[in-house]
Amino acid sequence: MRIDIVTCQPELLESPFAYSIVKRAQEKGLVAIHLHQLRDFAINKHGQIDDYVFGGGAGMVLRVEPIAACFDALLAQRTYDAVIYMTPDGQTLRQPHANRFSMAENLLILCGHYKGIDERIRQAYITHEISIGDYVLSGGELGAAVLVDTVVRLLPGVLGNEESALSDSFQDNLLAPPVYTRPAEWRGQAVPEILLSGNTPKIEAWRHDQAVERTRLRRPDLLDG
Amino acid sequence: MRIDIVTCQPELLESPFAYSIVKRAQEKGLVAIHLHQLRDFAINKHGQIDDYVFGGGAGMVLRVEPIAACFDALLAQRTYDAVIYMTPDGQTLRQPHANRFSMAENLLILCGHYKGIDERIRQAYITHEISIGDYVLSGGELGAAVLVDTVVRLLPGVLGNEESALSDSFQDNLLAPPVYTRPAEWRGQAVPEILLSGNTPKIEAWRHDQAVERTRLRRPDLLDG
Repeated sequence: MRIDIVTCQPELLESPFAYSIVKRAQEKGLVAIHLHQLRDFAINKHGQIDDYVFGGGAGMVLRVEPIAACFDALLAQRTYDAVIYMTPDGQTLRQPHANRFSMAENLLILCGHYKGIDERIRQAYITHEISIGDYVLSGGELGAAVLVDTVVRLLPGVLGNEESALSDSFQDNLLAPPVYTRPAEWRGQAVPEILLSGNTPKIEAWRHDQAVERTRLRRPDLLDG
Repeated sequence: MRIDIVTCQPELLESPFAYSIVKRAQEKGLVAIHLHQLRDFAINKHGQIDDYVFGGGAGMVLRVEPIAACFDALLAQRTYDAVIYMTPDGQTLRQPHANRFSMAENLLILCGHYKGIDERIRQAYITHEISIGDYVLSGGELGAAVLVDTVVRLLPGVLGNEESALSDSFQDNLLAPPVYTRPAEWRGQAVPEILLSGNTPKIEAWRHDQAVERTRLRRPDLLDG
């Protein structure tokens, strides 16, 4: 998989992609991530990429020309399965989106900044508008990092143990059950006895019950879905 | 505000906090962010902080002792308004949480990793369990970066123009209206005439209508809230 990310703050994405699972996936050749500095496509020598909002008001808006120039250059080189704009008014990211995006060959991600981007870019290029949640971030970079992480960890061969991704929360519309490790007793608090029993079918049944119960208590909306 | 973050991958958080608004807030002395390497509190010389899950199954679980040792050291030094665990089965982060956390003096954030943390830590220390969305991430670090960004940008004096945060999406349960900037015409697509009219009351009315319409189309759930 190839992921191109267009941003005016590529530095911000350095460490999230230089460690952890995304790093390992790149080293294994399972994903190639390319960061593109939007300022390289600025409209003038001063590196200008934004401008005041038409109609007045606070905040700056990313102009059409730098984004269009960068996109045109990339789109001339390959076909993208999705041209994604990270924006708070996009569709809220959920695990099924990550599952779908993980089957793509090429993804192009645009990070918004300041007050957003000129609406005409959205109409001309964007195929998917994605929000990582109902809160406001300083820019789209953290959203892009989140999206990349959710997608890359699903690529075959990235996780050490394939099982691990399947037993995560959300893959079956249930939250994960509580987990325990050694020591069996800590400050007077013991691990549930069933987990030490060695009775795998009973343990699996307990975990399922706990997962259902936790989901019912915390996220009943997932059970309706 | 002081924010302490406990993680086994502090490097991953370097660049998100070294640029953008969070950097500026730190330079202005409005927030101090301290990263704590969980391995400094490992149970042995090999730096062990995790162990196999009781009851069998894939994935490793963070042990109680390193987290407890790190938390105890921090809690001995100051009172925390919230001890937050970033976890997919936590409460889904929304703008009102960010608003509330932004009024705290001290926040302590724990990043999960691998298959999660021993349940007993959650019972003993955690006051808030927060998820940034219904998707699975490799660890809690990106979640912590997102939470910090949403909170820090709300601190008085962080944003250049106070107005800017108030007109963002979600602060009034409406998505933001479309924005445009120069040029007024691009590839045959013109900016809506009203925005060039200079008639501020009419422009504000248009923006409100657009915001309501966009919310109705994309996120009717916000209007019910």
